[in-house]
Amino acid sequence: MPSIITLLTDFGTADGYVGEVKGVLASEAPAALLVDIAHDIPPHDIDFGRLTVTRYWRRFPRGTVHLAVVDPDVGMQARAAIAVASDGQFLVGPDNGLLSHALLQPGAQVVKLTESPAASPTFHARDVFAPAAARLACGAQITSVGAFGHDPVVLLTPEPELDATGAAIGQVIAIDRFGNAITNLMAARATRVHIGGRVLKLVRTYGHLDPGEAGALIGSAGYVEVVVGQGSAAKVLGLTKGTAVRLS
Amino acid sequence: MPSIITLLTDFGTADGYVGEVKGVLASEAPAALLVDIAHDIPPHDIDFGRLTVTRYWRRFPRGTVHLAVVDPDVGMQARAAIAVASDGQFLVGPDNGLLSHALLQPGAQVVKLTESPAASPTFHARDVFAPAAARLACGAQITSVGAFGHDPVVLLTPEPELDATGAAIGQVIAIDRFGNAITNLMAARATRVHIGGRVLKLVRTYGHLDPGEAGALIGSAGYVEVVVGQGSAAKVLGLTKGTAVRLS
Amino acid sequence: MPSIITLLTDFGTADGYVGEVKGVLASEAPAALLVDIAHDIPPHDIDFGRLTVTRYWRRFPRGTVHLAVVDPDVGMQARAAIAVASDGQFLVGPDNGLLSHALLQPGAQVVKLTESPAASPTFHARDVFAPAAARLACGAQITSVGAFGHDPVVLLTPEPELDATGAAIGQVIAIDRFGNAITNLMAARATRVHIGGRVLKLVRTYGHLDPGEAGALIGSAGYVEVVVGQGSAAKVLGLTKGTAVRLS
Repeated sequence: MPSIITLLTDFGTADGYVGEVKGVLASEAPAALLVDIAHDIPPHDIDFGRLTVTRYWRRFPRGTVHLAVVDPDVGMQARAAIAVASDGQFLVGPDNGLLSHALLQPGAQVVKLTESPAASPTFHARDVFAPAAARLACGAQITSVGAFGHDPVVLLTPEPELDATGAAIGQVIAIDRFGNAITNLMAARATRVHIGGRVLKLVRTYGHLDPGEAGALIGSAGYVEVVVGQGSAAKVLGLTKGTAVRLS
Repeated sequence: MPSIITLLTDFGTADGYVGEVKGVLASEAPAALLVDIAHDIPPHDIDFGRLTVTRYWRRFPRGTVHLAVVDPDVGMQARAAIAVASDGQFLVGPDNGLLSHALLQPGAQVVKLTESPAASPTFHARDVFAPAAARLACGAQITSVGAFGHDPVVLLTPEPELDATGAAIGQVIAIDRFGNAITNLMAARATRVHIGGRVLKLVRTYGHLDPGEAGALIGSAGYVEVVVGQGSAAKVLGLTKGTAVRLS
Repeated sequence: MPSIITLLTDFGTADGYVGEVKGVLASEAPAALLVDIAHDIPPHDIDFGRLTVTRYWRRFPRGTVHLAVVDPDVGMQARAAIAVASDGQFLVGPDNGLLSHALLQPGAQVVKLTESPAASPTFHARDVFAPAAARLACGAQITSVGAFGHDPVVLLTPEPELDATGAAIGQVIAIDRFGNAITNLMAARATRVHIGGRVLKLVRTYGHLDPGEAGALIGSAGYVEVVVGQGSAAKVLGLTKGTAVRLS
């Protein structure tokens, strides 16, 4: 089977930066299949990118290489370039927390990439990350693209807290394209979901809500999601990242 | 030749849902090529998705599997999951009319997909449709992913009507990215196109119109299109889905 | 190695036009890998597309076929359809300047494509360019898709001028997704960058600027870029295509 290289960036596509990266990958790993994940991560939003990477990386087969670049500090001395081997797969990108989920898996290994002095200080995706990803896709060992001994940056999703009554207080961590508000509350058996002064109806799926009706459900990654029938929970309920949500 | 799986959704790409679906496909059909069609179908707009699927599916080679998901009723008992074999190709998605064009071809076969009890009720693209698409791409028979006997939902594009003078009265069925208004009037030899009180100049292609000038032409799928030179017919003429257009 | 066909258009993806083109390519060049570059080039903006093509085409391996279509004059007699062989690669698209960078390379060859009389006058991407691209990807000679003797349209990026003091006066030629303003000033050793009455700090990369601070750097294609720390230079400084920038 050919190896796969997935791509996630905040570059958009129109400017051709992703095209340049793909050209490097196609030249240096000619047998690899390129699979786009997203290029419309909000510019410079590392945490948004981190949550997206968390969602998909482990769904791919062993040996997949995930190139992920949201990199406001590109070219700065303080921001290392890394490759991670985790759970049979590889991830390549900036060391700014974007790859945290893979770094947190048991047995994860990380190397600091060797950077060519000819690399453009403003375009490591093309000149540092893509060449390393291509080599890994061609079967190179992780130690051939960099050196062990680097202590990587890890960003964590905030944990819910317990209040005096034992209720879990979480928060909205992301709003998706449909306006669903995804929380950090992992609840196999949530009984009641409160938002502001309001108790939300618990449903199995979106269609159980009337148009405009607010509710909550267990989303496809196992977290409580606040939703509105045929509408955007974010708009209807005024939710944003950080809004408190309580389980009881 | 490796088989092809095409993907159409209304998921956007940034949230990573499409990434998850691609991971399942790459894991379960490792030899298949993934070809993106679109992930920016307007959220929940089944009819828009239906018209898009109608355009492209038969252009692909025999054996292609088309995964198409615009699915506001995901996880509801009343909405079946289906696979269609039509004209040498396969289509997999929700039974809500999205796949109507393939269902209407002579000899089309449809099965109701077997759903794993472990499937997330809110993400059938990942847990129901992608596994079935992967199996079909690997050469499985359609009967191995579901059972015959299901009566599928079919949505039709409205037919033009004839008025007392024998003129065909149609309507705008879609506005494309350029603002061209595509109608349901199939006219190899349209003589006059009327919109409101106005008769439109008939041209062969866009460039025959002066900037800002309104006209009509036979579009690439054979339907009358209302267009404006170097501009958006929708904006300039105030056209929306449903606006009446008359041929004489 | 399978051959690669890259795709750049201003079609968007939702309407399914790109899906139709991919279906033709997959049917007529079944062994080729399709690689998306961008489908969100601003509608009809040939010059924007030209700059994007310039960025990526030579990064791909020998034998790659680049399909590039921004084509407001599709189907007009005066606008030829062309294929270019340049630097070991092929480009296929309208003869309106979009492919200028490849045409300008030493040894570039160009043919005027043979157009099928059955081609839709409004959709040459599907009916003229894709079939030619597919044949080239299958190993056909450039002379098998068209005839030599055509004199192609070439668009050039404006050259900077020198003022009385010997300073180079250039201009903004593009604004990218991040709001960076890319100029036509190629400066390995720029000393001072002036914009309006203002002298900009020269930095190596974005992160050396404070939030909101304006500066300049040498971008990844070798041109001077006007940038703002953690922000959009276009918005903060009111830059648009054509804004004058001076080097001294």
